[in-house]
Amino acid sequence: MSKAAAAVALLLGLAAAGPSPAQQRSATPTAAPKVILIIGDGMDQHQITIARNYLAGNSGRLTLDTLPVRSSVQIQTVVEEDPRVPEYVADSANTATSIATGIVTSTGRIATTPGTDRDAPTIMELAAAAGFGTGIVVTSSVTDATPASFVAHVSYRLCESPRTMVPTNTANAVFAASDCSADLKANGGKGSIAEQIAASRIDIVLGGGERNFAQPAEGEPDKTVRDLAVANGFRVIGTADQLAGLKRGGKVLGLFAPSTMPVQWRGAGGAQAQRVQHADNGRVVLPEAFACEPDPAYAATPPLASMARAALDFLDDGRSFMLMVESSSIDKQSHARRPCGQIGELKQLDETLKLVLEYAAAHPETLVLVTADHSQAAQLVPETSWLAGLNAASPGYFARIRTPEGAVMGVNYATNDSNLQEDHTGADVPLFAYGAAANEVPAAVRQSDLFGIMVRHLGLEAPPAP
Amino acid sequence: MSKAAAAVALLLGLAAAGPSPAQQRSATPTAAPKVILIIGDGMDQHQITIARNYLAGNSGRLTLDTLPVRSSVQIQTVVEEDPRVPEYVADSANTATSIATGIVTSTGRIATTPGTDRDAPTIMELAAAAGFGTGIVVTSSVTDATPASFVAHVSYRLCESPRTMVPTNTANAVFAASDCSADLKANGGKGSIAEQIAASRIDIVLGGGERNFAQPAEGEPDKTVRDLAVANGFRVIGTADQLAGLKRGGKVLGLFAPSTMPVQWRGAGGAQAQRVQHADNGRVVLPEAFACEPDPAYAATPPLASMARAALDFLDDGRSFMLMVESSSIDKQSHARRPCGQIGELKQLDETLKLVLEYAAAHPETLVLVTADHSQAAQLVPETSWLAGLNAASPGYFARIRTPEGAVMGVNYATNDSNLQEDHTGADVPLFAYGAAANEVPAAVRQSDLFGIMVRHLGLEAPPAP
Repeated sequence: MSKAAAAVALLLGLAAAGPSPAQQRSATPTAAPKVILIIGDGMDQHQITIARNYLAGNSGRLTLDTLPVRSSVQIQTVVEEDPRVPEYVADSANTATSIATGIVTSTGRIATTPGTDRDAPTIMELAAAAGFGTGIVVTSSVTDATPASFVAHVSYRLCESPRTMVPTNTANAVFAASDCSADLKANGGKGSIAEQIAASRIDIVLGGGERNFAQPAEGEPDKTVRDLAVANGFRVIGTADQLAGLKRGGKVLGLFAPSTMPVQWRGAGGAQAQRVQHADNGRVVLPEAFACEPDPAYAATPPLASMARAALDFLDDGRSFMLMVESSSIDKQSHARRPCGQIGELKQLDETLKLVLEYAAAHPETLVLVTADHSQAAQLVPETSWLAGLNAASPGYFARIRTPEGAVMGVNYATNDSNLQEDHTGADVPLFAYGAAANEVPAAVRQSDLFGIMVRHLGLEAPPAP
Repeated sequence: MSKAAAAVALLLGLAAAGPSPAQQRSATPTAAPKVILIIGDGMDQHQITIARNYLAGNSGRLTLDTLPVRSSVQIQTVVEEDPRVPEYVADSANTATSIATGIVTSTGRIATTPGTDRDAPTIMELAAAAGFGTGIVVTSSVTDATPASFVAHVSYRLCESPRTMVPTNTANAVFAASDCSADLKANGGKGSIAEQIAASRIDIVLGGGERNFAQPAEGEPDKTVRDLAVANGFRVIGTADQLAGLKRGGKVLGLFAPSTMPVQWRGAGGAQAQRVQHADNGRVVLPEAFACEPDPAYAATPPLASMARAALDFLDDGRSFMLMVESSSIDKQSHARRPCGQIGELKQLDETLKLVLEYAAAHPETLVLVTADHSQAAQLVPETSWLAGLNAASPGYFARIRTPEGAVMGVNYATNDSNLQEDHTGADVPLFAYGAAANEVPAAVRQSDLFGIMVRHLGLEAPPAP
């Protein structure tokens, strides 16, 4: 822009609006576009409100609440046997596949097409092929459904390691595709998720799942999957100290727990939701209210924010990068009816978001997206039923949480009556955006649209349909 | 703007952005700012997704999904006895009070302060005092909590008519303030909600609740509340034909049902959610899937869209106006575990929104807001539990809905185990905006902020704290 034009623009108030993302890129070629995608597994609106009430108070604000753009994500899942027919409740495999690849698939599938089992290219693979930095940071095993969908292609999410590739009972009500045989290397497949991570071009992968890499690789009884990763150039680390001392360069695989990483919080003394009891006279006896406390199992586990910080430092070399960060156990703790676990894991996400926003503020070429993959079971309900006078109470598992602001919050888990775990639910999930391209995020999207939004911001070419 | 400045602006791409709302108003004084607020009672994200799956399909779009601005609303409720302490689940009285007056109050209160019972001025009263048009259109009784909070001031939402003002059993677990005595005219109050509507300056009030106006007015045994309304200048109508033939001018009270208006849809043959049964061998027997069908009780009831159309025509006289339209029975049908009732009422809201958006497109000085007052019980869940192989199923009331696209959707109601009705839930609710001022709506608001957004758009002066 000429000085004269700039003066006119200033007079007309144009300066405040700033250059468009496209102008910015062409004007400053060193500011290569970056995407940081933060996923809260199962982080629906109930989860966010429950966590806010505890962490910031009913009138308080999470960092999440400060994001300037809000949207809603329509989840799509299809039936394996007839992909023209929808299913209304998703799992983390098919939803992460939608985000990572832009396709809609059946429950349990990892970056593969429904019915036809073709590989769908992922945003991480496209970014790596373009010479961009790539990173995956999660609190689950790095082989779990969400991270797997960004880097691997298998028909069934439980094909996590060489040991789980052997034929198992496939009569599984949940996952349409539940057979790993086509993915065995011996059958011309790419092997288990762990083996595909070991063979990948991802620059930095941090999370749990060490035991999946300690197994002998398929067809190579003398080598572990970890050995394959090392042979492919990965430095393998496993402690918070190693994470803190991480130097840039090469590739890093950080495995900080045998499987899912421990969570930060639990109910006081281990309290969780329980079935409402009845006294001898039939009257409802509600469970005692409890507060949250640090989970001793967490111990020296590196926080999600520390892992995300390390990944950002690692990737911040001037190139474009694609970083996916997931707080994985919001979902897992909700399945297990542990409200304080959920809240603590949403706290981890919110703390991570804070440092990501600081990074993005200093690097305006960064698009930050925060979303969930699917809805979960936990419901914020009255701490005593409105019909308590008629002896009514939750028919499911119920917790009463004593919040720091001096009130009691009811959390209900009642999607099924098993004593094992809750089901997912099917509501749209939230999407938040920050950064140069945030205003290009529509107010309502389909989950598979997220792929296109990221591909466009990074200037990648969308792949042909698989 | 001068021609030269306009040319420069055009060159710099300013034209596309258009004038700011303030510029627009000052440039065209005849385009008086207008607000159309649409409330879906209990319309949380589960309700919207359930309705979309049925009405438009899993990949389809509601009119709601086309709105350009999306936000999220944090609900606030306080304890009557100590308003410094929050409650985490709200009712329609305190939430509508937040929207209508900008204050935060306790459950059951209608535009009055918690503990101190002072009247809080409503947006309708401020608009009427400024000489603007005012309208209320609902499918509940016009004396129900949501509409009441825009036009009346009582301590307790059930103080709806002279008959309900007499002392009743106030041992009510739900509503903190549950005594009408201070609101009796004999005690210096303003009387019941119906009497306050009859005495109001609202230009057009349409909905149900005829029986509340057929009662003798307090202290005037020879006059009904309806007589008071007529004496105050209201034309009272009661049929769809009268609505269709409505002429502008004066004030109109349209009462199209004795209390809540019938709903448009029901489950086939009257089917609704039911408890899951167990066969003699203990195996789960899921309820039969059903589709939705027109509810014969609906008969000649005027649709919400027709009432909204009539109100818009009535108010569209060039002045500013404040119109509130509520699809009231999304909540009521969800309380009653009737998923097709919910879906049909959300359909009514979506059809109404369509015509409101057409109006707003032709009148760009109109701000359209769509929101819910609080979350509800219905959950979109798997149509067979993911643990069905272990004989797991909903512990509450459960429905399997056969959708037009050939799939089955599970809807679960399990906030309490009474056979009467569900409780509300406490999650943030959605907010959608359209129109000139829509971009001024932040991505996250507190419910009481909606009042300020409307006050500012209408150019009204915010009242002092009550």
